[in-house]
Amino acid sequence: MASPAVNYARDNQQRFLSELKTFLRIPSISTLREHKSDVQKAAEYVANELRRIGLENTQIVPTKGHPLVYADWLHAPGKPTVLCYAHYDVQPPDPLDEWISPPFEPTERNNNIYARGAVDDKGQLWMQVKAFEALMKSHHGKLPLNVKVIIEGEEEVGGESIAEYVRKEKTKLKADFALVCDTELFAPDLPTLCVGLRGLVYTELEAVGPKTDLHSGMYGGAAPNPFFGLIEVISKLKDAKGRILIPGFYKDVKAPTKDELKAWKRLPFKDETFRKAEVGSTTLIGEREYPTLYRLWARPTLEVHGMPGGFTAPGAKTVIPARAAAKVSMRLVPKQDPEDILKKYSNYIKKITPRGIDIKIKVWSKGPACVVGTDNKYIKAATEALHDVFKKETVFIRSGGSIPIVTDFQDVLKIPSVMMGFGLPDDNLHAPNEKFHIPNFYRGIETICTFFEKVGGAG
Amino acid sequence: MASPAVNYARDNQQRFLSELKTFLRIPSISTLREHKSDVQKAAEYVANELRRIGLENTQIVPTKGHPLVYADWLHAPGKPTVLCYAHYDVQPPDPLDEWISPPFEPTERNNNIYARGAVDDKGQLWMQVKAFEALMKSHHGKLPLNVKVIIEGEEEVGGESIAEYVRKEKTKLKADFALVCDTELFAPDLPTLCVGLRGLVYTELEAVGPKTDLHSGMYGGAAPNPFFGLIEVISKLKDAKGRILIPGFYKDVKAPTKDELKAWKRLPFKDETFRKAEVGSTTLIGEREYPTLYRLWARPTLEVHGMPGGFTAPGAKTVIPARAAAKVSMRLVPKQDPEDILKKYSNYIKKITPRGIDIKIKVWSKGPACVVGTDNKYIKAATEALHDVFKKETVFIRSGGSIPIVTDFQDVLKIPSVMMGFGLPDDNLHAPNEKFHIPNFYRGIETICTFFEKVGGAG
Repeated sequence: MASPAVNYARDNQQRFLSELKTFLRIPSISTLREHKSDVQKAAEYVANELRRIGLENTQIVPTKGHPLVYADWLHAPGKPTVLCYAHYDVQPPDPLDEWISPPFEPTERNNNIYARGAVDDKGQLWMQVKAFEALMKSHHGKLPLNVKVIIEGEEEVGGESIAEYVRKEKTKLKADFALVCDTELFAPDLPTLCVGLRGLVYTELEAVGPKTDLHSGMYGGAAPNPFFGLIEVISKLKDAKGRILIPGFYKDVKAPTKDELKAWKRLPFKDETFRKAEVGSTTLIGEREYPTLYRLWARPTLEVHGMPGGFTAPGAKTVIPARAAAKVSMRLVPKQDPEDILKKYSNYIKKITPRGIDIKIKVWSKGPACVVGTDNKYIKAATEALHDVFKKETVFIRSGGSIPIVTDFQDVLKIPSVMMGFGLPDDNLHAPNEKFHIPNFYRGIETICTFFEKVGGAG
Repeated sequence: MASPAVNYARDNQQRFLSELKTFLRIPSISTLREHKSDVQKAAEYVANELRRIGLENTQIVPTKGHPLVYADWLHAPGKPTVLCYAHYDVQPPDPLDEWISPPFEPTERNNNIYARGAVDDKGQLWMQVKAFEALMKSHHGKLPLNVKVIIEGEEEVGGESIAEYVRKEKTKLKADFALVCDTELFAPDLPTLCVGLRGLVYTELEAVGPKTDLHSGMYGGAAPNPFFGLIEVISKLKDAKGRILIPGFYKDVKAPTKDELKAWKRLPFKDETFRKAEVGSTTLIGEREYPTLYRLWARPTLEVHGMPGGFTAPGAKTVIPARAAAKVSMRLVPKQDPEDILKKYSNYIKKITPRGIDIKIKVWSKGPACVVGTDNKYIKAATEALHDVFKKETVFIRSGGSIPIVTDFQDVLKIPSVMMGFGLPDDNLHAPNEKFHIPNFYRGIETICTFFEKVGGAG
C-alpha cells in the first residue's frame, strides 16, 4: 500500500514535471561570468518554492561566489535530523551544435526530459523539494523528521563557498545524516546507493615561451613553443598504459576491500556493452591489470580537458604562440591527500619543464575522495525505501566522480551521507543532450518520501 | 644623383603612404570565410591602381579561392621582362587584445606604420606599384623594361590558385626573372637579398576517442581521451633536443655550402641579442649542434600552432571530449620532397597512434624549399641598386619562412626570383602590432625604380 505522501506525489506528477521545466529554463551556468544573474535567479526559484511549501527560515545566503540556499523545518522533536544537499548550478552546454533540442528549452522525447541540468542536478534537487511538499501535504503540514536544506550554486565550478559555510555554521547545520541526490542508478530499474567517490584536483598549466606570437617560419627551430612544452610535460605525466608517472603519486592509495571487489563482480556490467553503449570508442583504455569498474571507482587517473591558446580557427596560421595552456585534472582515491598530490604534481612538473618554457600552475579546485560505511541505520532505511519502490535489492557502488561536499559533511559535521541518486548511466552528464528519465524523477520523489517516513518511524 | 623616378618617388612620399593606409584598412584575411568580400575588395583596390597608373590588360582573375590580379606593360622591345609578385591577403589579427592600436586602423608611431599586413605584404606590394608609377611618370609614360604583374590573395592560406594559374598560363607569364617583395632586411640599414626559403607542410591532426563528450569522473580511466592521444603522438614526433623522430625524415636534407656557412658567420647576428630583442624567451632552443641561423634557415623543424577542441573557456569543466585536433606543421629544407615527407609523417603517425584513438590527417598546405643562385645578372643589378640607395654591400641570406610561388617560378617558368624585401626582423609578422618602418617603405620604392632602370639599361 502506497503511503499518503506517495499517493500525493503520484497525483501531482504532471505539475512537478512542469515546475522542473521552468527551473531547467534558467541557464544557471556557474562557470561563465555572463550567467551570474541566471545563477542568482535559479537560487531564488528554489528558495521561493521551499518557502511556498512550508519550510522555514528560508534564506539566500550570499557568498564570495554564487549564493547558497538554506531552509529548515525543525518541529519533530525526538526524531532524527536530515541535512539535504543538492546543487542548482549546471555545466556549460557547449558544444552547442550537438544538442538535438536546445539545452535550456527542456524537451520530452521517449519518456526522457532533455536539458542541461536535467539530471545533474536540477531534476534530483527538485525530487527532494517535491518530496518535502508531498510529505507536508499528507502529514497535516508536518514532516516525519527534522529537515535542514543546503543547496549550492558552485558545484560545477568547484567553488569553496559551501565548504566555508559548513565550517562556519557547524551548529546551524548539525544533523544526524545527510541526503545527497547527485548520483545515479547502476542500471535502469536497479536501486543503487553510492558509497564512494573519487576526489578531484583540477589545474590549468599556463605555459609561456616567446614574449610575443612569432612566425613559425622565421623562428621555428630556435624559439621555444609553449604548446610543445606542454606536450612534453603532459606526455611525462601519464604513460600509454594509463600509469601516472608523478613520483610518489600512488603511495597512499587505499585499495577497496575484498568484499567490495567481490560485490562489484556481481554487478550487471559488461566491458563490451559499456564500451559500445556509453563510451562509443573502438576500445577501452587504462591500466590493464585492473577491471574496468575498479579503474573507474578506485584507481586515480589524469586527464586533459582542453588546451587554450594559439590558432584554433579553421585554416592554417603559422604561429609560435607566446602562451598556451592545458586544463589538466587528476581523480583521487581514498587516502590520497589533494594537497600532497598537488605538491608532488607541481614539483614534478617543475623538474620536467623543458628549457625556454615557463609553466605556472593554477588550481581551479581540489577535494579528496570519500568512502561511506554501509552499516548505519540511515543507509539501512534507504535500502528499505528503495526496495518498497523498486521491489528489488539495492546494490552498493562507488562513483568515479567527485562530490567534495560529502567529504566536508564527513570531516566537519561528522555525519554520514546517503548518496541516493536516480540518474542513468547514459544520461549524458556534462555532455550534449543531457537527460533525466521521467519515471526515475517520479520514483525518486516516492523513494525520498518513503525513506523519510522510515527514518522518522512513520513508515 | 637621384634619377627622375627616384625624385618623383621622393616628392610623392606622403601620398604613397596615405594610399597604403587606405589599402591596410581593408581586412583582407584570407583564412577567414567571413572576410571573403574584404579580400575581393583588396584585389579591386590593387587592380584599380594598376589601371590608373597606366598598366595594361589589368584583370581580376577569379579562382576557386580568392582572386588573382594580373596586369602588364610590354612596350620595351629588346628589354628583359620582369614578373612582379606580391600578395594582398593578410593573416588573422588575433590575439586582438595585444594590439596597441587596432589592426585595421593603420597608426603611425616612431616612424613606423602599425597594421596587420603593413609589412606582410601590403606595404611591400605597394612599393612595387608605386615604383611602376614613379617610373611611368618620369619616363614619359613608359617603363624601362617589360613588366608583368601577378598578385595573389591566398598566400597566408596556402592556396593553390596561383600555382595552378602559373602552370596553366606559362606563356602569358613568360619572363626573364621574377621580383618577389615579401622578405626582410637582415638588419636595419643592411641591404639584403634572400636566396633561400624553407618549404612548408601544414597539417591538422583530427583525433576521435569516445562517441560523445564524457564526464571525466564517470569515465576517466577507461575512456580514451583524444587530447591525450594527440599528446602521446606529438611527443613522439620531435624530441626535447629538437630532433624530428619521423623515420627517414632527414634522409634527403641538403646542407648549405661551406661558402654559405662562412658568409652567415660574418653576418651581424648575436644569439643573445636575437633572443632578447626578437624572441623574448629565457633561452633559445633546438638542435644544439647547429648555430642559430643554420637552424632557422637550413634545418627542418616541426611546430604545433594550436589544439582546438574540449573546454577552453576560463574555469573548470570535467570533460573527456569526443574529438580534439592539433595544427602541426613542418618546415622543410632543400631536397626534402613535401609529398615524401607527408607520406613518412602519415605512416609514422599511424604506427604510434595509441589504442582507442583514431587520427585523420588533413593537409592545409604543402610546398618545397627553394634556393636561388647568386650568379645571374638580375641578382647583380639588384645588388647594385641596393648599393645606390643604401650605400652598402648587400648580404645574401636565407629565410626560414616559405614562399611556395618562388619554387613554382623556378620549376614551372624556369626563371630565377630576386627576393628583395624591406621588412625588419622585429616587424611582428603574423603577430600583434605588425609594423613597417616608413623609411624602408620609401627606400623600397627607390630601390625598385633603380633596379628596373639598371636592368633596362636606363640606369
